[in-house]
Amino acid sequence: MIDLTLIGIGTGNPQHLTLQAVEALNAQDLILIPNKGTGKDDLAGLRQAICAEAIRGHGQTGEAPRIVEFDLPVRDEATQDYRQRVDDWHDAIAEIWWQTITTHLPEGGAVGFLVWGDPSLYDSTMRIADRLKTRTEIALRVIPGITSIQALTAAHAIPINTINGPFTITTGRQLRDAGWPEGTETLVVMLDGACSFQSLEADGVEIWWTAYAGMENEISISGPLDEVTDQIIETRAKARADHGWIMDIYLLRR
Amino acid sequence: MIDLTLIGIGTGNPQHLTLQAVEALNAQDLILIPNKGTGKDDLAGLRQAICAEAIRGHGQTGEAPRIVEFDLPVRDEATQDYRQRVDDWHDAIAEIWWQTITTHLPEGGAVGFLVWGDPSLYDSTMRIADRLKTRTEIALRVIPGITSIQALTAAHAIPINTINGPFTITTGRQLRDAGWPEGTETLVVMLDGACSFQSLEADGVEIWWTAYAGMENEISISGPLDEVTDQIIETRAKARADHGWIMDIYLLRR
Repeated sequence: MIDLTLIGIGTGNPQHLTLQAVEALNAQDLILIPNKGTGKDDLAGLRQAICAEAIRGHGQTGEAPRIVEFDLPVRDEATQDYRQRVDDWHDAIAEIWWQTITTHLPEGGAVGFLVWGDPSLYDSTMRIADRLKTRTEIALRVIPGITSIQALTAAHAIPINTINGPFTITTGRQLRDAGWPEGTETLVVMLDGACSFQSLEADGVEIWWTAYAGMENEISISGPLDEVTDQIIETRAKARADHGWIMDIYLLRR
Repeated sequence: MIDLTLIGIGTGNPQHLTLQAVEALNAQDLILIPNKGTGKDDLAGLRQAICAEAIRGHGQTGEAPRIVEFDLPVRDEATQDYRQRVDDWHDAIAEIWWQTITTHLPEGGAVGFLVWGDPSLYDSTMRIADRLKTRTEIALRVIPGITSIQALTAAHAIPINTINGPFTITTGRQLRDAGWPEGTETLVVMLDGACSFQSLEADGVEIWWTAYAGMENEISISGPLDEVTDQIIETRAKARADHGWIMDIYLLRR
């Protein structure tokens, strides 16, 4: 029996932790931190720093939570189909979770994962957790966290919606493949490694763009899309080169 | 000169406060709490309780923040146009803010508002704050908070999106007026006082519904829409009668 808690930690600012998240971190026996390799070591390091700052208590076994890093496998780019590639990758991660958990907690216990943003939003942790249900009894708990959507709108101090207006959240891949969703006035784009706003007819579109939203090195640019496109592309490329990684998000309105 | 900080406090669970929100609450000279009258006194009371628990420090003037309640005006239902009605109401609230702030902080200072959920999401506080800019210099800061969207998906322990899939956030009013948005697979409906999912063709639609999301008295129901519609309507009516108020939210997927 494993109590699995997926803990939303916000977007990299340790101050984004909720009181509930701090409590949950302290209640674990084992905390697993993915290590994505050199390019993203910053992120594993940040999760370690958040744990070091927040953890003061003891897990169910009476010990302070043990923090264990595990190596994330890479996606097999030879698999052509996107969904299949993602599914295979999740299977491989679930296998590593299982090995790591049974090694460190052979009798079961409370296992926590720190999830960037919120565990429900464009994150695979919940889908990987579901895969463990075929192997043992899993009690799954989700602690909500500040998402990069909120960090973006806070950075610009703007409402996400017009009064009573709907809005759509999508991905860079969707924006490139499917274009601007019909009937949509406000669009938030996540997971975009390719500045996919370049694929749009820029006329009449405003953009609010933020990288490292909520963090100390946060960068924000906003304005008419046709006027700031080049500035965003250049700023993004430079920031990525400087830091070795980048996370960015933007809101479009027309 | 007024430093205005809009502090997202999450959905009514004091544990939803972020460390950043706790810090911001403690840094204010004056905290304004709206009082919506008898039916919603619970909410003013909850904001007071959150302040009482979180505030340990002192504002810019060296004093602990003063907490002042003000009476929210009611919307003039005689105004037919919805947008105009909302605009007039925001004007009236801005006037009350101004009177209250200048009474308690004639020299200016740091003024904080506790905002349910996140200040950017279906909340009028930012729009009212903008109205003060015609009267004095305003430095506006937004502290992101856990939204009822995250509290909903955490309650059901479900992802909000399918893999790489977009989703749309809308209101009960929009759902009734405009129906299911074309091309949308996943829909989150907020601000729905009328169980507007009844207006949909239920066949093939799943619903995840939660009232008082994140709070102690949280209630969740999920299943095929045609099977659980009656149960949700009855549960909602009873809960509203028991508590005197209700906040609910739901996710639909087809």
